[in-house]
Amino acid sequence: MPKYLAVNAGSSTLKWRLFDMPATKLLGQGLIDRINTPPATVTINVPGRDAVKYDTDTKDCGRVVADLLLQLKKLGLVERLHDIHGVGHRVVAGGEDFNESVIVNDDVLLKIRNLRNLAPLHNPVQANFIDTFRQVLPWATQVAVFDSAFHQSMPATSYLYGLPYTWYKQYGARKYGAHGTSVRYVAGRTAELIGRPLDQLRLIVLHLGAGSSVTAVKDGKSLDTSMGFTPLSGLISATRSGDVDPSLLAYLMRKLNVTADQMVDLLNDESGLKGISGLSDDMRTLTDAADTNPQAQLAIDMYVNRVVQYVGAYVAEMNGVDAFAFAGGIGEHSSAIRAQIMSHFQYLGATIDAKQNARNSAEVDLSDPDASVRTWLVPTDEELMIVRDTYRLVTTQQPAQ
Amino acid sequence: MPKYLAVNAGSSTLKWRLFDMPATKLLGQGLIDRINTPPATVTINVPGRDAVKYDTDTKDCGRVVADLLLQLKKLGLVERLHDIHGVGHRVVAGGEDFNESVIVNDDVLLKIRNLRNLAPLHNPVQANFIDTFRQVLPWATQVAVFDSAFHQSMPATSYLYGLPYTWYKQYGARKYGAHGTSVRYVAGRTAELIGRPLDQLRLIVLHLGAGSSVTAVKDGKSLDTSMGFTPLSGLISATRSGDVDPSLLAYLMRKLNVTADQMVDLLNDESGLKGISGLSDDMRTLTDAADTNPQAQLAIDMYVNRVVQYVGAYVAEMNGVDAFAFAGGIGEHSSAIRAQIMSHFQYLGATIDAKQNARNSAEVDLSDPDASVRTWLVPTDEELMIVRDTYRLVTTQQPAQ
Repeated sequence: MPKYLAVNAGSSTLKWRLFDMPATKLLGQGLIDRINTPPATVTINVPGRDAVKYDTDTKDCGRVVADLLLQLKKLGLVERLHDIHGVGHRVVAGGEDFNESVIVNDDVLLKIRNLRNLAPLHNPVQANFIDTFRQVLPWATQVAVFDSAFHQSMPATSYLYGLPYTWYKQYGARKYGAHGTSVRYVAGRTAELIGRPLDQLRLIVLHLGAGSSVTAVKDGKSLDTSMGFTPLSGLISATRSGDVDPSLLAYLMRKLNVTADQMVDLLNDESGLKGISGLSDDMRTLTDAADTNPQAQLAIDMYVNRVVQYVGAYVAEMNGVDAFAFAGGIGEHSSAIRAQIMSHFQYLGATIDAKQNARNSAEVDLSDPDASVRTWLVPTDEELMIVRDTYRLVTTQQPAQ
Repeated sequence: MPKYLAVNAGSSTLKWRLFDMPATKLLGQGLIDRINTPPATVTINVPGRDAVKYDTDTKDCGRVVADLLLQLKKLGLVERLHDIHGVGHRVVAGGEDFNESVIVNDDVLLKIRNLRNLAPLHNPVQANFIDTFRQVLPWATQVAVFDSAFHQSMPATSYLYGLPYTWYKQYGARKYGAHGTSVRYVAGRTAELIGRPLDQLRLIVLHLGAGSSVTAVKDGKSLDTSMGFTPLSGLISATRSGDVDPSLLAYLMRKLNVTADQMVDLLNDESGLKGISGLSDDMRTLTDAADTNPQAQLAIDMYVNRVVQYVGAYVAEMNGVDAFAFAGGIGEHSSAIRAQIMSHFQYLGATIDAKQNARNSAEVDLSDPDASVRTWLVPTDEELMIVRDTYRLVTTQQPAQ
C-alpha cells in the first residue's frame, strides 16, 4: 500500500508522521531535534513498540533525513523507500500566492522562499526541507500545505488594515492569518459531529495553544481570524503580546532604547502570559500557581478576556453563531479555561455542561442539553489534513510545471 | 445669576459655551480660531442674534482671551466679569492621576503638564489655557474635566496589554481611553430615556465621529473602551488607522524608510478613512461617492466592520447587553451607517425601525417596537457635563491646596 509522509518543520526540528493511504492508517511518527546544533537526536515511535532513539553527528539536512528514511525501512514501516509516493509539508506563510495546497515545483519553491518576510523563522527552513526531501526521495511528489491558505477566503473588509491602500498594493500590508490547516480540520469535523452541512453553518473555531487564535468560519469559509500580518497580533499567547496600541510601541522604543525590530522581538518572546505573569509562559504552570500568585491569575484572566472579545466580535460579524469548537493544547486540555470563556456566552444560549466539560483530549459535546448554540471539544489533527491533501493531489493532479 | 464657562481647547482653537447656573441656560457660545497664526478669528453666537465676528492681531493667549471676555460684557452676556464664578476645561489625558473632575491648583496643573506623553498635542495646550484663564479671571475657580477619567474604572484585565507587567509599572504602558466625558453623558441620559437605573444596566455607547470609540458601560462604570494608550488604537477613524499588527509596523518602517515616530504620525494623519479611500477623511463625502467609487465603499464597510467587532466584543465581555446608544458626528447624523451597524445585531434582538432611524440629531428611540434590546440615538453634550461638574465642584468643594 502506498505510504505518505506528513512533515512539520520548525526552525531546528522536524516532526513527521507516516501513513498508509488511502486507509489513513498511522504507521509511525517521530521527531528530529537540534538539527542545526549536532548531534541531532532522532526519535521514532511506532504504535505498539518501544521508541527508537539515536543521535546523528552531521549538520547536513539531506544526510539526517536519508538516515531517518533508512531507519523506517529497517523498522519495516516501509518495504522499499519507493513505496513513499508523497510528502506533504506544512508551510507557515503562503501570502496571496496560495489559497490551497499545491504540488511543489521550482516555481512554488521560489515563491515560498520569497514569502520569507511574512514568516522569517519558518518559510526559509520549510523551503529547505522541501528541497531536501525532493533530493532524497526524487520519485515522491512534494506537496505544500499552507497555514494561511484557508484564510485567503477572507473579504477585504476583514483582511485590510485601516492603512493607506497603497501600502497593501505595494508592500502586501494585510492580514494573512495562521492556524488555517487546523481550523479547516476542526470546522469540517464540527459540522460532521453536529450533523449539519458545513456550508450552511456559522462556526467559531478557538485554536488555543502556545499560539492562540479565534476564527469565524461562515459557510465553510474563513470570514475573519485573529492573527494578522504575522501571528503576533490578535490574542495573547504564551510569549506574544497580541494587539497593542501602535503609538505605545513608539513610546516604549524610546523608554527601553530599542529598535523597532528589537521591540517586535520583545513582543514575540517576552510578552503574553510570560510577560504579564513574570512567572511562566505555560498555562498549566499559571493555573497551578493562580491561587497564591495574583500575577498568574491576572495573566489567565487577561488571556480569557481577549479570547472572549474576539469570539464576541466574530459572532457579531456573522450576526449570530451555530456552534463553538475548542482545539489546541489549551483548548483540548483545560476544562477551567473553557469554562471561564463560555461563562461569557450565556446571552447566546451557549451554555455548557460541567460534567461534560470535565473531559479532555477527546471529541466531546460540551453543551448543556438545552443549549441553543452547541459547543464542542474537537481535538485538531493538522497532520491528517496534510496527508489527505497530499494524497488527493498526488492521485488526481499533475504538477503545474 | 452666576455664569459658568465650558472651555474646549484644541491645538490652535478654543471653543467655549457660557451658561447661567444652576439653570443651565446657554447664554452664548463661540470659537477662537487660528490662535497660533494671527490674526486669530473670534466668532460669538448668541441665541436669537446675529453672529459677532472679529480678528485679533496678537499671538498672546492672555490678550485674546481677555478681549473675548470684554466682548461678552459688551454684548450683555455678563454684567460684570466677576459674575463668572467658574471655568471648566476639557483635558484629554488624566492618566492614572485623575479618575474624576477636579478643581485646578498648582499641583493639578503640573500633573496635567507631566501627562503630555499621553496626549502631546493636547495636554500642554490645555494646561496653557487653564493658566491663561487663571490669570485673566483670577477670582473664578478653574476645573479640569478629563476625557480619560470615566475610564479609570476599567479593571486591569481591560486596561493592561499583553506586555511585561514591569512596563506598566515603570512606564505607565496601559489603556487609558478617551471620549469619557461624552460617554458618561450618553450613558446617563440613555438610562433616563429607557427609564431604568444606570447602575443596573449593560450599555454599549458608540461615540462615532472624526475620532470614534465604543465603550462598554456596566452598572454605570466604564468596563472597557476601544481607544488605548492614545486614541490611535481601536476603531478606524477619519485619519487614524485603529488596530494594526505590531510586526507590520516594523516591516513598514523598513519599506517606507521612516522612524517609529514618523510611522505613528502616518498612522494618525494619513490612515483610516482617508488612507483606505484615497479620497476623503469625511464620512459624508465617502457616502456620497460610494455608489461609483469602490474605494469609498470599502472605507465605509471597513469602518462599520470594526465598529461591529468592538460592539460584539464588549457585549461578550458583559455577557449580554440592555441597550445601545449612538452619539458623535457620524452616530448622530448618519442613518445609513447606523443601519449598517445594527444589521449585525439581529441575533441579540436589537432590531431597529427604519422610519425612526431616518431621523437624526435628536433623541430618538430607534428600536423596533418588539426589539428585546433597545437602541437609542442620544446626541452627546460634553460641554453640559463640563459645566455641571464645574458648578458642582465650585459650590460644594474647596481646592485641595
